[in-house]
Amino acid sequence: MTTIAFIGLGIMGGPMAANLVRAGYDVIGYNRSRPAVDTLIERGGRGAAGVTEAVTEADVIITMLPDGPDVEAVALGEHGIYAASQPGTLHIDCSTIMPDTAERLARAAVSAGRRALDAPVSGGERGAVEAALSIMVGGEAADVQEARPILEQLGKTVVHVGPNGAGQTVKAANQLLVAGIIELVAEALVFLEACAVDTHAAVEVLAGGLAGNAVLDHKAAAMLARDFKPGFRIDLHHKDMGIVRAAARKAGVAIPLGTLAGELIASLRAQGHGDLDHGALLLLVEQLSGRATTNQER
Amino acid sequence: MTTIAFIGLGIMGGPMAANLVRAGYDVIGYNRSRPAVDTLIERGGRGAAGVTEAVTEADVIITMLPDGPDVEAVALGEHGIYAASQPGTLHIDCSTIMPDTAERLARAAVSAGRRALDAPVSGGERGAVEAALSIMVGGEAADVQEARPILEQLGKTVVHVGPNGAGQTVKAANQLLVAGIIELVAEALVFLEACAVDTHAAVEVLAGGLAGNAVLDHKAAAMLARDFKPGFRIDLHHKDMGIVRAAARKAGVAIPLGTLAGELIASLRAQGHGDLDHGALLLLVEQLSGRATTNQER
Amino acid sequence: MTTIAFIGLGIMGGPMAANLVRAGYDVIGYNRSRPAVDTLIERGGRGAAGVTEAVTEADVIITMLPDGPDVEAVALGEHGIYAASQPGTLHIDCSTIMPDTAERLARAAVSAGRRALDAPVSGGERGAVEAALSIMVGGEAADVQEARPILEQLGKTVVHVGPNGAGQTVKAANQLLVAGIIELVAEALVFLEACAVDTHAAVEVLAGGLAGNAVLDHKAAAMLARDFKPGFRIDLHHKDMGIVRAAARKAGVAIPLGTLAGELIASLRAQGHGDLDHGALLLLVEQLSGRATTNQER
Amino acid sequence: MTTIAFIGLGIMGGPMAANLVRAGYDVIGYNRSRPAVDTLIERGGRGAAGVTEAVTEADVIITMLPDGPDVEAVALGEHGIYAASQPGTLHIDCSTIMPDTAERLARAAVSAGRRALDAPVSGGERGAVEAALSIMVGGEAADVQEARPILEQLGKTVVHVGPNGAGQTVKAANQLLVAGIIELVAEALVFLEACAVDTHAAVEVLAGGLAGNAVLDHKAAAMLARDFKPGFRIDLHHKDMGIVRAAARKAGVAIPLGTLAGELIASLRAQGHGDLDHGALLLLVEQLSGRATTNQER
Repeated sequence: MTTIAFIGLGIMGGPMAANLVRAGYDVIGYNRSRPAVDTLIERGGRGAAGVTEAVTEADVIITMLPDGPDVEAVALGEHGIYAASQPGTLHIDCSTIMPDTAERLARAAVSAGRRALDAPVSGGERGAVEAALSIMVGGEAADVQEARPILEQLGKTVVHVGPNGAGQTVKAANQLLVAGIIELVAEALVFLEACAVDTHAAVEVLAGGLAGNAVLDHKAAAMLARDFKPGFRIDLHHKDMGIVRAAARKAGVAIPLGTLAGELIASLRAQGHGDLDHGALLLLVEQLSGRATTNQER
Repeated sequence: MTTIAFIGLGIMGGPMAANLVRAGYDVIGYNRSRPAVDTLIERGGRGAAGVTEAVTEADVIITMLPDGPDVEAVALGEHGIYAASQPGTLHIDCSTIMPDTAERLARAAVSAGRRALDAPVSGGERGAVEAALSIMVGGEAADVQEARPILEQLGKTVVHVGPNGAGQTVKAANQLLVAGIIELVAEALVFLEACAVDTHAAVEVLAGGLAGNAVLDHKAAAMLARDFKPGFRIDLHHKDMGIVRAAARKAGVAIPLGTLAGELIASLRAQGHGDLDHGALLLLVEQLSGRATTNQER
Repeated sequence: MTTIAFIGLGIMGGPMAANLVRAGYDVIGYNRSRPAVDTLIERGGRGAAGVTEAVTEADVIITMLPDGPDVEAVALGEHGIYAASQPGTLHIDCSTIMPDTAERLARAAVSAGRRALDAPVSGGERGAVEAALSIMVGGEAADVQEARPILEQLGKTVVHVGPNGAGQTVKAANQLLVAGIIELVAEALVFLEACAVDTHAAVEVLAGGLAGNAVLDHKAAAMLARDFKPGFRIDLHHKDMGIVRAAARKAGVAIPLGTLAGELIASLRAQGHGDLDHGALLLLVEQLSGRATTNQER
Repeated sequence: MTTIAFIGLGIMGGPMAANLVRAGYDVIGYNRSRPAVDTLIERGGRGAAGVTEAVTEADVIITMLPDGPDVEAVALGEHGIYAASQPGTLHIDCSTIMPDTAERLARAAVSAGRRALDAPVSGGERGAVEAALSIMVGGEAADVQEARPILEQLGKTVVHVGPNGAGQTVKAANQLLVAGIIELVAEALVFLEACAVDTHAAVEVLAGGLAGNAVLDHKAAAMLARDFKPGFRIDLHHKDMGIVRAAARKAGVAIPLGTLAGELIASLRAQGHGDLDHGALLLLVEQLSGRATTNQER
């Protein structure tokens, strides 16, 4: 039986680890705060008191952590997973981090005689709970092959998109598109409201043509209702847009709309709305349009 | 049998009029250049030598013209359709024009004892040929009711979105979304190419999540192949973005991403690419990223 | 003695006409609301009850009106100044209007056997009162020659910048630069405040180098003090940015920073701040930075 | 006699060190490549073979290095200047680096019993040669007092703008303003050229009013002549805009125009123009306006 060490049992990692238990894997979980470990144990997993303990007997290690420095902190160093795990162990990092951090980690893994994949996910808490994530995987084909049965317990779409780092690059592209499309939908909705159009009829007809998109399908109704409970928080999308910008800058690629969308997310966060769903970009469009009463009336 | 005068038999109007003939309507077509009229006659319609002749005996008049001033030129004035048609005639304008021009036309129609609807369409030449357009209708409910059987011969989705002008407002929102999403997809694709990712695999996984959109589904492949034969020309989208901007400015609504997308379309046009498909926004992203060789190698 | 008809005796036109009286010209003023005419009479000018009466005996006609349509309304038509004035009369339009409207007016003047110059001014109310305006003149060299002694009573800098319309083009460039620089200074000041820098010391050192500009010299102190009484109102700069955008679009020239500055001015206006000085762009930067308390405490 | 260690004898540091020699200071210079040290010796200074050697007997240490990591590399660590210099030594860093790196360095200096100031400069190579720099100083008042006589040998304007890091913050504001104003001037100039205006006359009249700025005074002529030999290179301004963006993001301040200007600089660099003067933003405006022939004809 494959033993999987799962490090980072938060909103995403918790249900992902539980899905692996459910699929019959031997899962040893570790999390900085203990209650998440206890929850995993209740669901049939095992708990560890630290990273080293978690990874020593693992065949595969999955990390699901907030940002690149967190992954580097558990992966590298004397007590890190590349030192403490068995030689040859496969590390699958599902966190969203900088592509070049992912490349650096993969090189460190190989130097230490281990192997690493970047496998960031899209689909949010619901996708994690329902094992319906989209997973974009970067790394060696043989490693992806080996990881696939595990990843398919976590998501519906598992695609190998290129070498180490490529998974993170595609995730960055994903966050760029999502941020920009939410902002465009926000602009369109505020414009339609300002012009006294039947917005629900409008959304219906817009969704059917070349303007159609998943934000219109899944988020426009909540945005029109000013329901901004997350979902995916502005704070996290802000962090991700930092990755998008840095990666595009490094690649020398111009992303004018992506950059502007990132600035608007940064503004929303600076205004204290970091805990709202990213659909709250609509609030900023309203404010810039002098239509912020709705916002204050919330 | 309902007699329909159809004014403007261009790339869109020609096949639309033909679809009405096919549906059994008595269609009298007029177009500034004669060959388009002859084509309609071959398809079973009738031809007129001028606007007045076309509309005199019509029950319903449809216009499909390049811009607002063109519609005003045929609708208003001593020999215009509101003067030359029978009292009570219904005018359905399918052109894409400024919302307030549509409102003004509707008021002029009512003053003249006629009735008007704005019913701009989305779906391009193929949608027109295949009677698969999305049609966003603004006007009185009773008039929309009357027009519906006719419009349903032209498109699959016919939605009443509000009073006169609302159809144009929704069309403007549509063009805003389409322009912005194409630009975002262009930014994402150039970024993915620059990072040596498997772009086709990436498009597959991106399309499945919250980033998913019709541009990714229907245009990304052509964009990756640098196939920019229209489709919908930059020149036309440039004209439409002028409408979007003016309508948003009039409504006092901030559309920062829409505005920036409009500027990029204007640049592409200034560079002499007005005849390319709007997917050619990718060329501009490449150029701004110092990756324009592909462009010159085309 | 040269007789000058002066049409439009508002905040700018009033003191300009008074300066011409003071310089010894015979000035016949007309204004839509009567009190401004009475003020001119008190200052030694003459009053007229209408445009026709004002221009019949004039050698030179000056217009100082809010926008292009206003100038066209008084210049063209059966009772307009090109019909009612003496053949050969010189029309100097000091209003800020679209360059192509200025060209059209000049052609209409020539067709009617009159002559026209566009001579928009920069320098605001104080410049008008103190005869210290900058005046950018477009038109025939001989006409500029003839107008120069008059214009030099109104401003310190009178420059012939090209054919008819060129004056308005340069004025548009002026408004583009001013809007953009105010916004940049606002961004810099809010940034400095947020970082607990001594802003007055910072302004001093910034003003001395390549970053130095007239906004820093003349407006930064008021902006830091949140003193936004006009000066030049957001409403007017918004109108002028409409001209800038339209002229650049017509010329096919990309003005990305100018466009974005125009959007921010439009937002400030949509928020109800149209009556504040354009230095109030600082309020918008504060708001977007979540630092709007100062604003509400004003 | 005060002994000054000067580390970093490049385009800026070389002439600055020479000016200190000329003012009578005992200057020990160190540079990674030897010829710059020899040049200093020819001018009357002394040379050192390494950082440690340079700083051991110094009363004051000046660093003038490309970026923050370079300064940290020489300042921190076992052989760094805070370890190798005499206790109490004053370190004046004239490099342009992140404000929070400057703060961190100052804290490290204090921990080590030394003192640090950030004193970035503005004015370019000419300012360095002519001892005409503007210098924005952050740190303790007593330290600034002590450094002032030295700094006044390097620049004309020496202003204490706040605590450690404040000098870098003001420098960031400076680079934001300069980038944005150059871009605005480029947009205005291309617009004026496209409209067949007398650009030299236009620059004259624009410079006299609220649009007036040092870029118009000192760079517009070269930009009109397409003379882009540096001056200040795009590569360096690109690096500085990275600092500006990061500092504004950290402070939570929205800098929409600054960000867009930074994107345009990044594009110019991606296109291979990193070695041109930053006035070359005009080339990008031309390109976006389809007027790039001039560029290719250069």
